[in-house]
Parts: sequence; C-alpha cells; structure tokens
Amino acid sequence: MSLVNQIVTIPLFQDLPQKDLKDLTAIVIHQVFKRAQIIFSEGDEGKGFYVVISGRVKIFKLSPEGKEQILHIFGPGEPFGEVPVFAGKCFPANAEAIEKSRLFYFPRDAFFDLINKSPSLAMNMLAVLSKRLHQFTALIEDLSLKEVPGRLAAYLIYLSEQQKSTDDLTLDISKSQLASLLGTIPETLSRILARMTREAIIESDGQRHIRILDLKLLEKLASGEVRLSK
Amino acid sequence: MSLVNQIVTIPLFQDLPQKDLKDLTAIVIHQVFKRAQIIFSEGDEGKGFYVVISGRVKIFKLSPEGKEQILHIFGPGEPFGEVPVFAGKCFPANAEAIEKSRLFYFPRDAFFDLINKSPSLAMNMLAVLSKRLHQFTALIEDLSLKEVPGRLAAYLIYLSEQQKSTDDLTLDISKSQLASLLGTIPETLSRILARMTREAIIESDGQRHIRILDLKLLEKLASGEVRLSK
Repeated sequence: MSLVNQIVTIPLFQDLPQKDLKDLTAIVIHQVFKRAQIIFSEGDEGKGFYVVISGRVKIFKLSPEGKEQILHIFGPGEPFGEVPVFAGKCFPANAEAIEKSRLFYFPRDAFFDLINKSPSLAMNMLAVLSKRLHQFTALIEDLSLKEVPGRLAAYLIYLSEQQKSTDDLTLDISKSQLASLLGTIPETLSRILARMTREAIIESDGQRHIRILDLKLLEKLASGEVRLSK
Repeated sequence: MSLVNQIVTIPLFQDLPQKDLKDLTAIVIHQVFKRAQIIFSEGDEGKGFYVVISGRVKIFKLSPEGKEQILHIFGPGEPFGEVPVFAGKCFPANAEAIEKSRLFYFPRDAFFDLINKSPSLAMNMLAVLSKRLHQFTALIEDLSLKEVPGRLAAYLIYLSEQQKSTDDLTLDISKSQLASLLGTIPETLSRILARMTREAIIESDGQRHIRILDLKLLEKLASGEVRLSK
C-alpha cells in the first residue's frame, strides 16, 4: 500500500485534500517498536507525535512506589502524544509498546514547518477534528435520548460515517460492551440485530461484521420516525 | 465581561495562550439575531463560523416538499458552521435563531490570516480539539465498561474537565436523559446520587447543580478500584 493510502486511513487525516496528504508523507517516519520497548517517558520533550499502524501501545504513569497505572491503550489508526506535541509541552505520561508495533512518527518541527508553509493544512485538520467532535457529541446525545433500537441505529450510522462505508462495518467494541453502551443486555441486543436482519435493514455475520442494506430506514429508526415491529 | 474573558469560556478556544485569545478578539464580530431570523442558508458560501454566546440556534434542512428536518440545536458555548468554514466549503444546511441569540462571528478570511501569521494558533487549536476528542473517546469507553455508579462517576469527572470546575457543575442534559445515557432509570440514578451525597462524595441541589467534594474517591469509583456501599 502506498504511503498516501496508508495516511488517508488515519482518522486524524481523513478527508484531507490529496496535496495535504502528500505533504504529510514527506515528513512521516516509519518506526517499529519491539514488545515492552519504551516509546517515550513522562517529562520528555514532545518532539513529535505518533499514530499506531499495527500493534498496541499503552500509556501509563508510575506511582512514587513504582506501581504502574495504565491510562489508555491505543490501537491501529489512533494517534497518541499529539495533544502535548501540538501544544508544545512535555509528555505527561509514559508510552510503551505492549506488542510489536509499527508506528508513524511525525516530528513536531517538520509538522510545524508544513503548517507554516500551508495554513490550509491546519484549516483542513481543524475541519476534520471539529467534524469528529460533532459526530461524537451527536452520538452521546443520541445514546441518551432514544429507545434501544433507535440507539443501535444511531450507533451504526455513526460507525458508517467513521469507517466511511456501509458495506463492511466492523464493531470497534465487543457485543457485550456495545449492549452496555446502548443501555441494554447482550440478549436484547442480539434480538434487535436479528430483527433488523429479518427486515433486511442490515446483514450481520453474528460476529463483529455488519453490512447496512437500508441506510434510509436505519436513519428513520435513529430519528424516531419509524419503530421496529416486535 | 471583557472579550478575552468571554472567548476563553468557549470550549473551542479553551486552554489557548493569552496571545492567541487576544488575536481572536481582534477579528470577532458580535452579532444579535431575533427569534426566527435566518443566520445562513444551505448552499451559502461558508464565509465565517459562529459561536453561540446566548440563546439557541437550530440547524435544519428542508425537504423538496418544504418539510423542516432539524439536525441539531446549538446553545451557549457551542460553535456551528465551523466544519465547512475550516474546510472552505458551502454550508450544507440552514441556521435560524429559535430565540433572540447573541453570537460571535469569526470571518473566515480574517481567521485564515491569523493562522497564516501565527501557525502556533493553529497548533494550539489542534491541541484543544484533540484533547476534547480523547475526553469524548474515554467517556464513550467508560460508559460501555462500568457499572452504573462507576459510569456516573466517570461522567461527573468528564463534566468537571469540560467545565474546568469541581465546585459548581451544571448537568448539560436532564436527569432522565442522564439516566438513559448511563443505561439506567431516573429512580436508580436518584438513589445513587443520594448515596454519593450521604458519603460526602458530592453535594447535589436535587436539580442540575452538583458539587464534587471528594474528587479522589470519585476517580477510584470511576476506575473500579472502590465500589459504592449499598
């Protein structure tokens, strides 16, 4: 896969014009970390940020007694360290590969130069991040306002926007986590998925893959215009 | 209140250095819209974006038959129109004040000039937006992984980060919406709030105002380290 094709799959850079993507390929550095290898340490100057291409990275703090507290685990497509790097601060925690991981590294100086030369890259990235924030806000509101089938519909639409596809959606959390997120139990979630499948709204492999067959109807379910029959 | 003090309360600009805030005050235009006044129409060139200072604004589309579909309602502190404006596109929907509304308007050309002159403003805004995205992601994960008291704790911590205060948090949704978001019913939510009050973790006015008394304990509840006694 070409570098541009890899970069365009990163949500942080999604929707960027081809020119911006090409500019980014000129500064990205491909890095590979072994399992248990430290990527950066708390207090290090934020000289650049990372995006996970494959593998997993844990972000953690150490207590004065040396006890490890994991703050977050990042997987493919996810950026980390970018908040302090954009803000010109030190890293507030440690990062370590928990398995062999391929990362894209964007040095701050080179990234800053890019923005300096091409302010439209900054504007476009602001657009990408603002759009994702609106999607998240809408998701959180949707989750709080609807019945379970409507919430599931809203979640699937959100996923299809995120993954830019209706053909092969991959649930990014387990079914029991999804049930919990939707405020229900896995059994109810399975029943609703089965009903949506029967009505030819979606197709599900019973695992994490879902295909949207009738987006219009799904949108109506999400907006509450129609309800799923029992 | 000074313009800088007003701008710093807008989440889109939170955490920006004083210099950036001052630069923004130089380009902002204060606008007042009457109830039912159109702010922009679908297809208009995105010449600038808005932040609601007071009042409420609805974003809507019109069907070919003229039927109105409301996509979103924005209130104080919330930006709108910034995604197409950052991306240099036309507005994809209409905006109308649903009550008398005071707005801050940021013209695109002036904003672009600012970024052009001061790329660090762009970097700092990218940091702000990235940080909010991480907070949102964490909230969504938290909501899907914890028992109801832990979820409530996670939500209150999220609110205190958003509102930069532990002293007077204002729930931004109704209690029944919050109950639904946490996957429970209003009665259970009220019981948990009462228990947290009894244990001096929070203080609640029974309405939308909450004060965090013991943030450490709330964090332990959210992380699952401790559980609320019955």
